[in-house]
Amino acid sequence: MELPRLYAITDRKKYGENFLETLEKILKKGVRMVQLREKDLKDRELYKLAKEVRALTKKYKALLLINERFDIALAVEADGVHLPEQSFPPSVVKRVNPNFIVGFSAHSLESAKYAEKEGADFITLSPIFKTSSHPEAQPIGLKTLKEVSEKVNIPVYALGGITWEKIKVCYKNGAYGIAGISMFLE
Amino acid sequence: MELPRLYAITDRKKYGENFLETLEKILKKGVRMVQLREKDLKDRELYKLAKEVRALTKKYKALLLINERFDIALAVEADGVHLPEQSFPPSVVKRVNPNFIVGFSAHSLESAKYAEKEGADFITLSPIFKTSSHPEAQPIGLKTLKEVSEKVNIPVYALGGITWEKIKVCYKNGAYGIAGISMFLE
Repeated sequence: MELPRLYAITDRKKYGENFLETLEKILKKGVRMVQLREKDLKDRELYKLAKEVRALTKKYKALLLINERFDIALAVEADGVHLPEQSFPPSVVKRVNPNFIVGFSAHSLESAKYAEKEGADFITLSPIFKTSSHPEAQPIGLKTLKEVSEKVNIPVYALGGITWEKIKVCYKNGAYGIAGISMFLE
Repeated sequence: MELPRLYAITDRKKYGENFLETLEKILKKGVRMVQLREKDLKDRELYKLAKEVRALTKKYKALLLINERFDIALAVEADGVHLPEQSFPPSVVKRVNPNFIVGFSAHSLESAKYAEKEGADFITLSPIFKTSSHPEAQPIGLKTLKEVSEKVNIPVYALGGITWEKIKVCYKNGAYGIAGISMFLE
Protein backbone atom coordinates (compact mmCIF):
# COMPACT_ATOMS: atom_id res chain seq x y z
CA MET A 1 0.00 0.00 0.00
CA GLU A 2 1.30 3.41 -0.89
CA LEU A 3 0.87 5.95 1.88
CA PRO A 4 -1.02 9.16 1.05
CA ARG A 5 1.07 12.27 0.45
CA LEU A 6 -0.84 14.66 2.70
CA TYR A 7 -1.05 13.99 6.42
CA ALA A 8 -3.28 16.15 8.60
CA ILE A 9 -2.67 16.31 12.34
CA THR A 10 -5.57 17.41 14.51
CA ASP A 11 -5.59 20.10 17.17
CA ARG A 12 -8.90 20.86 18.86
CA LYS A 13 -7.72 24.32 19.82
CA LYS A 14 -7.08 25.24 16.20
CA TYR A 15 -9.95 23.28 14.67
CA GLY A 16 -12.42 25.22 16.77
CA GLU A 17 -15.75 24.17 18.20
CA ASN A 18 -16.96 22.24 15.20
CA PHE A 19 -14.13 19.78 15.25
CA LEU A 20 -15.71 17.19 12.99
CA GLU A 21 -16.91 19.77 10.48
CA THR A 22 -13.42 21.21 10.27
CA LEU A 23 -11.96 17.76 9.81
CA GLU A 24 -14.49 16.99 7.10
CA LYS A 25 -13.46 20.12 5.22
CA ILE A 26 -9.88 18.88 5.33
CA LEU A 27 -10.89 15.47 4.04
CA LYS A 28 -12.82 17.16 1.26
CA LYS A 29 -9.61 18.89 0.23
CA GLY A 30 -8.19 15.45 -0.54
CA VAL A 31 -6.27 14.63 2.62
CA ARG A 32 -6.28 10.85 3.06
CA MET A 33 -4.32 10.38 6.26
CA VAL A 34 -5.23 11.86 9.62
CA GLN A 35 -3.52 11.74 12.98
CA LEU A 36 -5.81 12.24 15.95
CA ARG A 37 -3.55 14.04 18.38
CA GLU A 38 -5.44 15.28 21.40
CA LYS A 39 -3.09 14.51 24.24
CA ASP A 40 -5.00 16.35 26.93
CA LEU A 41 -8.21 14.35 26.59
CA LYS A 42 -9.08 11.77 29.21
CA ASP A 43 -9.39 8.19 28.00
CA ARG A 44 -13.16 8.11 27.81
CA GLU A 45 -13.39 11.37 25.85
CA LEU A 46 -10.52 10.40 23.58
CA TYR A 47 -12.19 7.08 22.86
CA LYS A 48 -15.48 8.79 22.09
CA LEU A 49 -13.87 11.33 19.77
CA ALA A 50 -11.74 8.66 18.11
CA LYS A 51 -14.87 6.67 17.29
CA GLU A 52 -16.41 9.68 15.60
CA VAL A 53 -13.22 10.45 13.70
CA ARG A 54 -12.98 6.81 12.64
CA ALA A 55 -16.47 6.97 11.15
CA LEU A 56 -15.68 10.21 9.33
CA THR A 57 -12.33 9.08 7.96
CA LYS A 58 -13.88 5.84 6.78
CA LYS A 59 -16.45 7.80 4.82
CA TYR A 60 -13.59 9.42 2.91
CA LYS A 61 -11.50 6.24 2.75
CA ALA A 62 -8.81 8.07 4.69
CA LEU A 63 -6.32 6.40 6.99
CA LEU A 64 -6.63 7.18 10.68
CA LEU A 65 -3.71 7.07 13.07
CA ILE A 66 -3.99 7.76 16.78
CA ASN A 67 -1.22 9.59 18.57
CA GLU A 68 0.62 7.21 20.88
CA ARG A 69 -2.41 5.41 22.34
CA PHE A 70 -2.58 2.14 20.51
CA ASP A 71 -5.23 0.85 22.88
CA ILE A 72 -7.54 3.54 21.57
CA ALA A 73 -6.35 2.73 18.04
CA LEU A 74 -7.25 -0.92 18.54
CA ALA A 75 -10.54 -0.08 20.19
CA VAL A 76 -11.82 2.08 17.33
CA GLU A 77 -10.17 0.01 14.61
CA ALA A 78 -7.92 2.79 13.47
CA ASP A 79 -5.29 2.05 10.84
CA GLY A 80 -2.38 2.67 13.12
CA VAL A 81 -0.61 4.86 15.59
CA HIS A 82 1.79 7.74 15.51
CA LEU A 83 4.48 7.61 18.17
CA PRO A 84 6.19 10.63 19.68
CA GLU A 85 9.97 10.44 19.72
CA GLN A 86 10.01 9.76 23.46
CA SER A 87 7.32 7.08 23.42
CA PHE A 88 7.87 3.34 23.35
CA PRO A 89 9.62 1.79 20.34
CA PRO A 90 7.63 1.16 17.12
CA SER A 91 8.55 -2.52 17.40
CA VAL A 92 6.35 -2.81 20.49
CA VAL A 93 3.29 -1.76 18.52
CA LYS A 94 4.19 -3.99 15.59
CA ARG A 95 4.53 -6.97 17.88
CA VAL A 96 1.02 -6.43 19.24
CA ASN A 97 -0.50 -5.66 15.86
CA PRO A 98 1.65 -6.23 12.78
CA ASN A 99 -1.08 -4.73 10.61
CA PHE A 100 -0.87 -1.34 12.24
CA ILE A 101 0.74 1.47 10.31
CA VAL A 102 3.25 3.03 12.66
CA GLY A 103 4.37 6.61 12.21
CA PHE A 104 7.13 8.16 14.26
CA SER A 105 7.97 11.78 15.09
CA ALA A 106 11.65 12.21 14.33
CA HIS A 107 13.49 15.42 15.01
CA SER A 108 16.96 14.40 13.85
CA LEU A 109 18.77 11.99 11.56
CA GLU A 110 19.59 9.85 14.56
CA SER A 111 15.99 9.36 15.63
CA ALA A 112 14.91 8.86 12.01
CA LYS A 113 17.34 5.97 11.73
CA TYR A 114 16.19 4.60 15.06
CA ALA A 115 12.57 4.69 13.86
CA GLU A 116 13.45 2.85 10.67
CA LYS A 117 15.44 0.21 12.51
CA GLU A 118 12.58 -0.26 14.98
CA GLY A 119 10.07 -0.92 12.23
CA ALA A 120 8.26 2.39 11.79
CA ASP A 121 6.46 2.65 8.44
CA PHE A 122 7.19 6.33 8.05
CA ILE A 123 8.40 9.34 9.95
CA THR A 124 7.45 12.93 10.25
CA LEU A 125 10.54 15.11 10.41
CA SER A 126 10.13 18.36 12.26
CA PRO A 127 10.25 21.24 12.60
CA ILE A 128 11.49 22.02 9.11
CA PHE A 129 10.54 25.70 9.48
CA LYS A 130 9.47 27.95 12.34
CA THR A 131 6.08 26.75 13.51
CA SER A 132 3.27 28.23 15.57
CA SER A 133 2.62 24.85 17.23
CA HIS A 134 6.06 24.73 18.83
CA PRO A 135 7.32 28.32 18.71
CA GLU A 136 10.26 27.49 20.98
CA ALA A 137 11.63 24.75 18.71
CA GLN A 138 14.65 25.48 16.57
CA PRO A 139 13.92 24.67 12.88
CA ILE A 140 16.09 21.91 11.45
CA GLY A 141 15.78 23.23 7.91
CA LEU A 142 15.70 21.84 4.40
CA LYS A 143 19.27 20.60 4.54
CA THR A 144 18.42 18.15 7.30
CA LEU A 145 15.26 17.15 5.42
CA LYS A 146 17.38 16.32 2.42
CA GLU A 147 19.97 14.44 4.44
CA VAL A 148 17.39 12.37 6.32
CA SER A 149 15.42 11.61 3.16
CA GLU A 150 18.58 10.28 1.55
CA LYS A 151 19.67 8.21 4.52
CA VAL A 152 16.48 6.41 5.52
CA ASN A 153 14.42 4.13 3.32
CA ILE A 154 11.00 4.88 4.77
CA PRO A 155 8.81 7.80 3.70
CA VAL A 156 9.67 11.13 5.29
CA TYR A 157 6.88 13.66 5.83
CA ALA A 158 8.06 17.22 6.19
CA LEU A 159 6.37 18.85 9.18
CA GLY A 160 6.49 22.20 10.89
CA GLY A 161 5.74 25.62 9.49
CA ILE A 162 4.92 24.27 6.04
CA THR A 163 2.67 26.39 3.86
CA TRP A 164 1.21 25.53 0.48
CA GLU A 165 3.91 27.72 -1.08
CA LYS A 166 6.65 25.73 0.60
CA ILE A 167 5.42 22.29 -0.41
CA LYS A 168 7.40 22.25 -3.62
CA VAL A 169 10.71 23.03 -1.97
CA CYS A 170 10.06 20.24 0.54
CA TYR A 171 9.50 17.72 -2.24
CA LYS A 172 12.63 18.97 -3.95
CA ASN A 173 14.52 18.23 -0.76
CA GLY A 174 13.38 14.65 -0.58
CA ALA A 175 10.08 14.78 1.30
CA TYR A 176 7.75 11.92 0.48
CA GLY A 177 4.80 13.83 1.84
CA ILE A 178 3.69 16.83 3.82
CA ALA A 179 2.29 16.81 7.33
CA GLY A 180 0.77 19.68 9.20
CA ILE A 181 -1.91 21.17 11.37
CA SER A 182 -2.40 24.78 10.33
CA MET A 183 -1.71 24.43 6.61
CA PHE A 184 -4.81 22.32 6.10
CA LEU A 185 -6.93 24.90 7.89
CA GLU A 186 -6.18 27.66 5.41
CA MET B 1 -9.79 -19.73 36.51
CA GLU B 2 -10.46 -18.60 40.05
CA LEU B 3 -9.21 -15.12 40.77
CA PRO B 4 -6.80 -14.68 43.70
CA ARG B 5 -8.25 -13.27 46.90
CA LEU B 6 -5.64 -10.60 47.58
CA TYR B 7 -5.14 -7.79 45.10
CA ALA B 8 -2.27 -5.34 45.56
CA ILE B 9 -2.40 -1.95 43.88
CA THR B 10 0.90 -0.15 43.37
CA ASP B 11 1.78 3.40 44.32
CA ARG B 12 5.36 4.52 43.72
CA LYS B 13 5.05 7.24 46.33
CA LYS B 14 4.19 4.72 49.02
CA TYR B 15 6.38 1.89 47.78
CA GLY B 16 9.43 4.10 48.06
CA GLU B 17 12.61 4.13 46.04
CA ASN B 18 13.04 0.40 45.77
CA PHE B 19 9.78 -0.15 43.98
CA LEU B 20 10.53 -3.64 42.72
CA GLU B 21 11.93 -4.79 46.05
CA THR B 22 8.81 -3.58 47.82
CA LEU B 23 6.63 -5.32 45.29
CA GLU B 24 8.60 -8.51 45.69
CA LYS B 25 8.04 -8.42 49.45
CA ILE B 26 4.31 -8.18 48.76
CA LEU B 27 4.45 -11.13 46.39
CA LYS B 28 6.35 -13.08 49.00
CA LYS B 29 3.46 -12.48 51.38
CA GLY B 30 1.28 -14.48 49.01
CA VAL B 31 -0.39 -11.79 46.93
CA ARG B 32 -1.11 -13.22 43.48
CA MET B 33 -2.73 -10.32 41.70
CA VAL B 34 -1.15 -6.93 41.15
CA GLN B 35 -2.44 -3.76 39.55
CA LEU B 36 0.23 -1.44 38.20
CA ARG B 37 -1.31 1.95 38.78
CA GLU B 38 1.13 4.74 38.08
CA LYS B 39 -0.97 7.28 36.26
CA ASP B 40 1.58 10.06 36.24
CA LEU B 41 4.25 8.15 34.32
CA LYS B 42 4.87 8.97 30.69
CA ASP B 43 4.29 6.16 28.21
CA ARG B 44 7.90 5.19 27.79
CA GLU B 45 8.57 5.03 31.54
CA LEU B 46 5.32 3.21 32.20
CA TYR B 47 6.17 0.67 29.53
CA LYS B 48 9.64 0.16 30.99
CA LEU B 49 8.31 -0.28 34.53
CA ALA B 50 5.50 -2.54 33.33
CA LYS B 51 8.03 -4.84 31.67
CA GLU B 52 9.95 -5.15 34.92
CA VAL B 53 6.80 -5.75 36.92
CA ARG B 54 5.69 -8.35 34.38
CA ALA B 55 8.93 -10.26 34.85
CA LEU B 56 8.62 -10.10 38.63
CA THR B 57 4.96 -11.12 38.77
CA LYS B 58 5.68 -14.00 36.41
CA LYS B 59 8.35 -15.26 38.77
CA TYR B 60 5.68 -15.52 41.46
CA LYS B 61 2.98 -16.75 39.09
CA ALA B 62 0.96 -13.68 39.99
CA LEU B 63 -1.53 -12.01 37.69
CA LEU B 64 -0.64 -8.54 36.45
CA LEU B 65 -3.22 -5.96 35.50
CA ILE B 66 -2.38 -2.51 34.17
CA ASN B 67 -4.48 0.46 35.16
CA GLU B 68 -6.49 1.67 32.17
CA ARG B 69 -3.74 1.43 29.54
CA PHE B 70 -4.47 -1.73 27.66
CA ASP B 71 -1.88 -0.87 25.03
CA ILE B 72 0.77 -1.18 27.71
CA ALA B 73 -0.96 -4.33 28.96
CA LEU B 74 -0.79 -5.84 25.48
CA ALA B 75 2.77 -4.69 24.97
CA VAL B 76 4.13 -6.37 28.11
CA GLU B 77 1.78 -9.35 27.92
CA ALA B 78 0.04 -8.52 31.14
CA ASP B 79 -2.98 -10.59 32.16
CA GLY B 80 -5.42 -7.75 31.87
CA VAL B 81 -6.39 -4.22 32.71
CA HIS B 82 -8.14 -2.42 35.49
CA LEU B 83 -10.46 0.34 34.37
CA PRO B 84 -11.33 3.42 36.38
CA GLU B 85 -15.04 4.13 36.66
CA GLN B 86 -14.78 7.02 34.18
CA SER B 87 -12.72 5.15 31.59
CA PHE B 88 -14.03 3.41 28.50
CA PRO B 89 -16.41 0.45 28.91
CA PRO B 90 -14.98 -3.00 29.76
CA SER B 91 -16.60 -4.33 26.58
CA VAL B 92 -14.16 -2.27 24.51
CA VAL B 93 -11.21 -4.08 26.04
CA LYS B 94 -12.88 -7.48 25.74
CA ARG B 95 -13.56 -6.86 22.06
CA VAL B 96 -9.88 -6.17 21.41
CA ASN B 97 -8.64 -9.00 23.59
CA PRO B 98 -11.22 -11.46 24.93
CA ASN B 99 -8.50 -13.15 26.98
CA PHE B 100 -7.81 -10.11 29.08
CA ILE B 101 -9.02 -10.08 32.65
CA VAL B 102 -10.87 -6.81 33.09
CA GLY B 103 -11.26 -5.26 36.51
CA PHE B 104 -13.38 -2.20 37.14
CA SER B 105 -13.36 0.41 39.90
CA ALA B 106 -16.93 0.72 41.10
CA HIS B 107 -17.98 3.20 43.73
CA SER B 108 -21.69 2.43 43.87
CA LEU B 109 -24.21 -0.32 43.19
CA GLU B 110 -25.10 1.39 39.94
CA SER B 111 -21.58 1.34 38.54
CA ALA B 112 -21.05 -2.20 39.82
CA LYS B 113 -24.06 -3.33 37.79
CA TYR B 114 -22.83 -1.38 34.79
CA ALA B 115 -19.43 -3.10 35.04
CA GLU B 116 -21.04 -6.53 35.18
CA LYS B 117 -23.30 -5.80 32.23
CA GLU B 118 -20.33 -4.50 30.24
CA GLY B 119 -18.35 -7.68 30.77
CA ALA B 120 -15.96 -6.84 33.60
CA ASP B 121 -14.55 -9.94 35.30
CA PHE B 122 -14.54 -8.38 38.72
CA ILE B 123 -14.87 -5.07 40.49
CA THR B 124 -13.17 -3.28 43.28
CA LEU B 125 -15.69 -1.48 45.44
CA SER B 126 -14.41 1.57 47.23
CA PRO B 127 -13.89 3.27 49.53
CA ILE B 128 -15.34 0.91 52.11
CA PHE B 129 -13.62 2.78 54.95
CA LYS B 130 -11.79 6.08 55.29
CA THR B 131 -8.59 5.83 53.27
CA SER B 132 -5.33 7.72 53.15
CA SER B 133 -5.20 7.40 49.33
CA HIS B 134 -8.38 9.40 48.85
CA PRO B 135 -8.88 11.27 52.12
CA GLU B 136 -11.65 13.41 50.62
CA ALA B 137 -13.80 10.44 49.59
CA GLN B 138 -16.84 9.56 51.67
CA PRO B 139 -16.72 5.88 52.76
CA ILE B 140 -19.57 3.78 51.39
CA GLY B 141 -19.40 1.33 54.27
CA LEU B 142 -20.01 -2.35 54.86
CA LYS B 143 -23.72 -2.09 54.17
CA THR B 144 -23.08 -1.09 50.57
CA LEU B 145 -20.45 -3.81 50.28
CA LYS B 146 -23.03 -6.35 51.36
CA GLU B 147 -25.69 -4.99 49.04
CA VAL B 148 -23.40 -4.89 46.00
CA SER B 149 -22.01 -8.36 46.71
CA GLU B 150 -25.53 -9.72 46.78
CA LYS B 151 -26.68 -7.96 43.64
CA VAL B 152 -23.84 -8.61 41.22
CA ASN B 153 -22.57 -12.00 40.12
CA ILE B 154 -18.93 -11.10 39.61
CA PRO B 155 -16.31 -11.06 42.38
CA VAL B 156 -16.27 -7.93 44.52
CA TYR B 157 -12.98 -6.83 46.07
CA ALA B 158 -13.34 -4.58 49.08
CA LEU B 159 -11.02 -1.59 48.74
CA GLY B 160 -10.25 1.50 50.76
CA GLY B 161 -8.97 1.78 54.29
CA ILE B 162 -8.86 -1.97 54.79
CA THR B 163 -6.48 -3.28 57.42
CA TRP B 164 -5.64 -6.88 58.24
CA GLU B 165 -7.97 -6.61 61.22
CA LYS B 166 -10.86 -5.57 59.00
CA ILE B 167 -10.50 -8.33 56.42
CA LYS B 168 -12.79 -10.70 58.27
CA VAL B 169 -15.66 -8.24 58.50
CA CYS B 170 -15.31 -7.56 54.76
CA TYR B 171 -15.61 -11.25 53.95
CA LYS B 172 -18.60 -11.48 56.27
CA ASN B 173 -20.21 -8.73 54.25
CA GLY B 174 -19.83 -10.51 50.96
CA ALA B 175 -16.38 -9.52 49.71
CA TYR B 176 -14.80 -12.06 47.40
CA GLY B 177 -11.39 -10.57 47.98
CA ILE B 178 -9.46 -7.68 49.42
CA ALA B 179 -7.69 -4.97 47.44
CA GLY B 180 -5.40 -2.31 48.77
CA ILE B 181 -2.24 -0.30 48.61
CA SER B 182 -1.14 0.44 52.16
CA MET B 183 -2.32 -2.76 53.83
CA PHE B 184 0.20 -4.84 51.91
CA LEU B 185 3.00 -2.51 52.95
CA GLU B 186 2.55 -3.15 56.65
